[in-house]
Amino acid sequence: MSNPKVGIIMGSKSDLPVMQDAADILKELGVAYEITVVSAHRTPERMFNYAKTAAERGLKIVIAGAGGAAHLPGMVASITHLPVIGVPVKSSNSIDGWDSILSILQMPNGIPVATVALNAAKNAGILAAQILATSDDELSNRLLDYKEDLRKKVEQSASEM
Amino acid sequence: MSNPKVGIIMGSKSDLPVMQDAADILKELGVAYEITVVSAHRTPERMFNYAKTAAERGLKIVIAGAGGAAHLPGMVASITHLPVIGVPVKSSNSIDGWDSILSILQMPNGIPVATVALNAAKNAGILAAQILATSDDELSNRLLDYKEDLRKKVEQSASEM
Amino acid sequence: MSNPKVGIIMGSKSDLPVMQDAADILKELGVAYEITVVSAHRTPERMFNYAKTAAERGLKIVIAGAGGAAHLPGMVASITHLPVIGVPVKSSNSIDGWDSILSILQMPNGIPVATVALNAAKNAGILAAQILATSDDELSNRLLDYKEDLRKKVEQSASEM
Amino acid sequence: MSNPKVGIIMGSKSDLPVMQDAADILKELGVAYEITVVSAHRTPERMFNYAKTAAERGLKIVIAGAGGAAHLPGMVASITHLPVIGVPVKSSNSIDGWDSILSILQMPNGIPVATVALNAAKNAGILAAQILATSDDELSNRLLDYKEDLRKKVEQSASEM
Amino acid sequence: MSNPKVGIIMGSKSDLPVMQDAADILKELGVAYEITVVSAHRTPERMFNYAKTAAERGLKIVIAGAGGAAHLPGMVASITHLPVIGVPVKSSNSIDGWDSILSILQMPNGIPVATVALNAAKNAGILAAQILATSDDELSNRLLDYKEDLRKKVEQSASEM
Amino acid sequence: MSNPKVGIIMGSKSDLPVMQDAADILKELGVAYEITVVSAHRTPERMFNYAKTAAERGLKIVIAGAGGAAHLPGMVASITHLPVIGVPVKSSNSIDGWDSILSILQMPNGIPVATVALNAAKNAGILAAQILATSDDELSNRLLDYKEDLRKKVEQSASEM
Amino acid sequence: MSNPKVGIIMGSKSDLPVMQDAADILKELGVAYEITVVSAHRTPERMFNYAKTAAERGLKIVIAGAGGAAHLPGMVASITHLPVIGVPVKSSNSIDGWDSILSILQMPNGIPVATVALNAAKNAGILAAQILATSDDELSNRLLDYKEDLRKKVEQSASEM
Amino acid sequence: MSNPKVGIIMGSKSDLPVMQDAADILKELGVAYEITVVSAHRTPERMFNYAKTAAERGLKIVIAGAGGAAHLPGMVASITHLPVIGVPVKSSNSIDGWDSILSILQMPNGIPVATVALNAAKNAGILAAQILATSDDELSNRLLDYKEDLRKKVEQSASEM
Repeated sequence: MSNPKVGIIMGSKSDLPVMQDAADILKELGVAYEITVVSAHRTPERMFNYAKTAAERGLKIVIAGAGGAAHLPGMVASITHLPVIGVPVKSSNSIDGWDSILSILQMPNGIPVATVALNAAKNAGILAAQILATSDDELSNRLLDYKEDLRKKVEQSASEM
Repeated sequence: MSNPKVGIIMGSKSDLPVMQDAADILKELGVAYEITVVSAHRTPERMFNYAKTAAERGLKIVIAGAGGAAHLPGMVASITHLPVIGVPVKSSNSIDGWDSILSILQMPNGIPVATVALNAAKNAGILAAQILATSDDELSNRLLDYKEDLRKKVEQSASEM
Repeated sequence: MSNPKVGIIMGSKSDLPVMQDAADILKELGVAYEITVVSAHRTPERMFNYAKTAAERGLKIVIAGAGGAAHLPGMVASITHLPVIGVPVKSSNSIDGWDSILSILQMPNGIPVATVALNAAKNAGILAAQILATSDDELSNRLLDYKEDLRKKVEQSASEM
Repeated sequence: MSNPKVGIIMGSKSDLPVMQDAADILKELGVAYEITVVSAHRTPERMFNYAKTAAERGLKIVIAGAGGAAHLPGMVASITHLPVIGVPVKSSNSIDGWDSILSILQMPNGIPVATVALNAAKNAGILAAQILATSDDELSNRLLDYKEDLRKKVEQSASEM
Repeated sequence: MSNPKVGIIMGSKSDLPVMQDAADILKELGVAYEITVVSAHRTPERMFNYAKTAAERGLKIVIAGAGGAAHLPGMVASITHLPVIGVPVKSSNSIDGWDSILSILQMPNGIPVATVALNAAKNAGILAAQILATSDDELSNRLLDYKEDLRKKVEQSASEM
Repeated sequence: MSNPKVGIIMGSKSDLPVMQDAADILKELGVAYEITVVSAHRTPERMFNYAKTAAERGLKIVIAGAGGAAHLPGMVASITHLPVIGVPVKSSNSIDGWDSILSILQMPNGIPVATVALNAAKNAGILAAQILATSDDELSNRLLDYKEDLRKKVEQSASEM
Repeated sequence: MSNPKVGIIMGSKSDLPVMQDAADILKELGVAYEITVVSAHRTPERMFNYAKTAAERGLKIVIAGAGGAAHLPGMVASITHLPVIGVPVKSSNSIDGWDSILSILQMPNGIPVATVALNAAKNAGILAAQILATSDDELSNRLLDYKEDLRKKVEQSASEM
Repeated sequence: MSNPKVGIIMGSKSDLPVMQDAADILKELGVAYEITVVSAHRTPERMFNYAKTAAERGLKIVIAGAGGAAHLPGMVASITHLPVIGVPVKSSNSIDGWDSILSILQMPNGIPVATVALNAAKNAGILAAQILATSDDELSNRLLDYKEDLRKKVEQSASEM
């Protein structure tokens, strides 16, 4: 695969079952990515370096997933000017996901995080593809095909009832 | 200004005091936009047409703000393949903003909405610029300058204490 | 069975175990219905057409169930002038049902959705029958019998304690 | 005006500023109604009698508004077989409306209440009209006109921006 | 056992596993009780009669348990002048118990319900005994013994660590 | 007035505007009371002594109001065997009253607090009177008159509409 | 081990599986502790004595865990001037932990409780060590090593992906 | 004043009216402090440096206040091994304080933040003094005096009622 455009990071390896969905849909849509563990709280310098060098390493977008007091997406967004997509993870230490959502979503003016639904790493991947597709017509067409597939599957299940 | 790249829409004219922030920051960052009222509930066909033609009219991103049972961002995202940024508005009929947030954020797999904080239209504008900057180096530099200004203002207020 | 009076739709086939209760009680009360899958987000045009033609196809009421950012009931209500009954479904991607409830209930002025309790598709069916019974004395009597049965069952269980 | 078809009741006279909206829209749509105070908690017998005689007095629908531990809509629904529309009122003793909503919405199987948004008495009135319109073509046309007016007002405010 | 002083009622037989705790502790404390099913929603007349005749039948206190939109405790309190203790039950149709709690607790001025913790039927029984003990010195002494036992059990478990 | 039967205490003098309602209704119902400030957190020994001596001083019931992390009602209940009525106060440091409610209501098995609605000190007073009336027929009659007055006021306001 | 510096207490022996984590990490960090059961509600005098004598017995910090209406941490803090660390426990009678958190966290001015995350007894232990390390350089170094270990583990799991 | 022992930082100058309470009580208790603005999101490097050098500059404790998605306390705690006290601020962009609380409180294992009540900067100051008093007998005595003053003020207000 070519040079990664999307960096997928997560606060803990235990977030991988959720975050793998982002990788899978990016692969399906033909978007090169990298994936690793970066903890804002346990490896703050690693996080700092990851965010600081993301653009120069050729990344266009960062997808960051975390749970509980989830600071990873917001901190990465504070360091890089790339768009950051936040995935609130309903981890074992989360209060039904409310902490994960609020600590990712409620960023102050100046530092947005593009937040998707709880555990919705797949949508984070699709959103990353949509962002890249704003300057990539082929990817845009693959997204149109993907949307068409969604439609067909619903109509298929409707016809089976 | 050149052809609009970002379409800003809102469910009601009463959302304008919030949504104007998106327009203002886009103007400041030199991104062409259009702004109008499109109600998912009161003008569903207008909403449908707006979303259906967004890409062909040259828009690259849609920013949609709404409050209460806020269906506008999600419905636009269901129709277009462009990235859609949702702004939950704490409108007068909203329950402290919780309904606005959840009905925009919690989209099903396949149809992401890039949700920002409650009333954070400014961040929606910045996020739109970040998305366009993934293929526009000049805009990317303006975003770096903007981040630098944020930093300086904090240091200025720190030095005044 | 005669021409359907009630259209039961749901956002995903995975909502069927919940929504089947609406069909069952309508059958028990002798009300003709149809049931299918219509996704606001994955099949917006199908949703649009379903709602647009509901009245002319003879439907008197639409029951719509959905979970998470549940836009189906509200969007159908925005397109048809028929009464729409919304069933918030506690689907797997829902935050304990709060998102489902708020995104169905909190409709803006002008576009009501008659919302029932979380997962209460049975009550949606009974409400549809109550609506039809406002101009159907026989159905009205069947509803009185149904209420009488509820009473007897409680008294039966009381007598067994 | 002719014999009332819709009975509007509320738990306290202090709910009138909210509940008047139901009366106003019904008047605008040409639907005869009656309006009074019935408290489930302070006048349980009056509530019982109101609900018990509602159908025989010619009412087709009851709209009931209440706040806090709001039992009026559900108790009326337990006694009459008419459709009952519940309006959660954000009264002074309510916790941001959450108690009003949950104690109206979360009715058990067998006894539905058609719940509308917090303070949305206007939507309760429209829903009552939609219910009556299932057997009244003229009213149905007035509702279509009303929907058309909503659309025009949005387009008007869009054209003014 | 002597004439019952405490009436324990519940909205559904499915609440019995929770409500049995009230009966058990009353038995342990030597307080005569009766226990049955009374549904505010499915048997409103039975509920009305139960509450209306409670005092004349010699009951001094009513313990009422219910879940979801739990109207039983409040409606009984609206009809009788006896103290009513409400037990919010986390029933299968409840949203994590929030609806049960709020629809029992948030009674309007004039009509109190003495609410205990979610599913805390045991505490409802103890509270009933405390109320009767305000005019019964022997029962008062049994309550002091019960409190002493609680203390000893904690100290026992402390000594075992 | 005779020897106080009800002790009204509150965590801070700032709770007095809420808690005065308990005193006023007790006076109206002819029940002797005392009222003072006792802080669980700032005067733990005073709280301990108040609760320890409450019964021997002739009190039959304690009404305790507090806000935020409201420990006063539960701690008094842990020390005395008298019934304790808790009033959650929406004080300035409370999060919309949720903390006040939950920290009073959710007592563990063995130590009930009879919780009333947020700020509902009036209902705490009525509940105290209902408890005393279980062994006082005159007070019982005054409560019946009070209920009758509530009814008449509603009917009066109904007749004025 | 030397004289205990940290007292770990919990409201019930059923909290031990959670609270043991505090003991384990203190042992790992070489900090002497004691651990026992003290119930604010069932053994108020024991709680009073524990808190009153904590400082004179040589304790420097108290860690208190409790669930539901969790009064133990706040009451201990009201009696001793030592720093008190509160651990909200998601016990079986807790409403998803919200009651535990709010009744520990929301202490009034003058009486702080250092609250950690839901069930986070391990963090309570680390915080206690951090507090002692403000005057103990060796312990400070062990904490630096602990932080370094956290970092290495994340980098290890990153390298394995 | 001597070398500061406590560093007070806040995410924005707009948090100063809340955070000043921490400074005031520390001054009253004779604890040297410094106070400044450090934004995790707008000045991440400044935050990083502040936390990295805190211990070597002689600070013993950091008090950090922030609102909304409040990452400052947790990020400082991730970098320094000093105890960090977090003050959730109910800032204008906060959802009633819930986001501020959850994003500070719900830290993962390994990285505690000692969280105090919403807006409770005064308690943060007291807690800092309690921590320093674990190795400072004079400060310990001043805290005992402070507690005694709290007690006297309550008894004074009790005697005035």
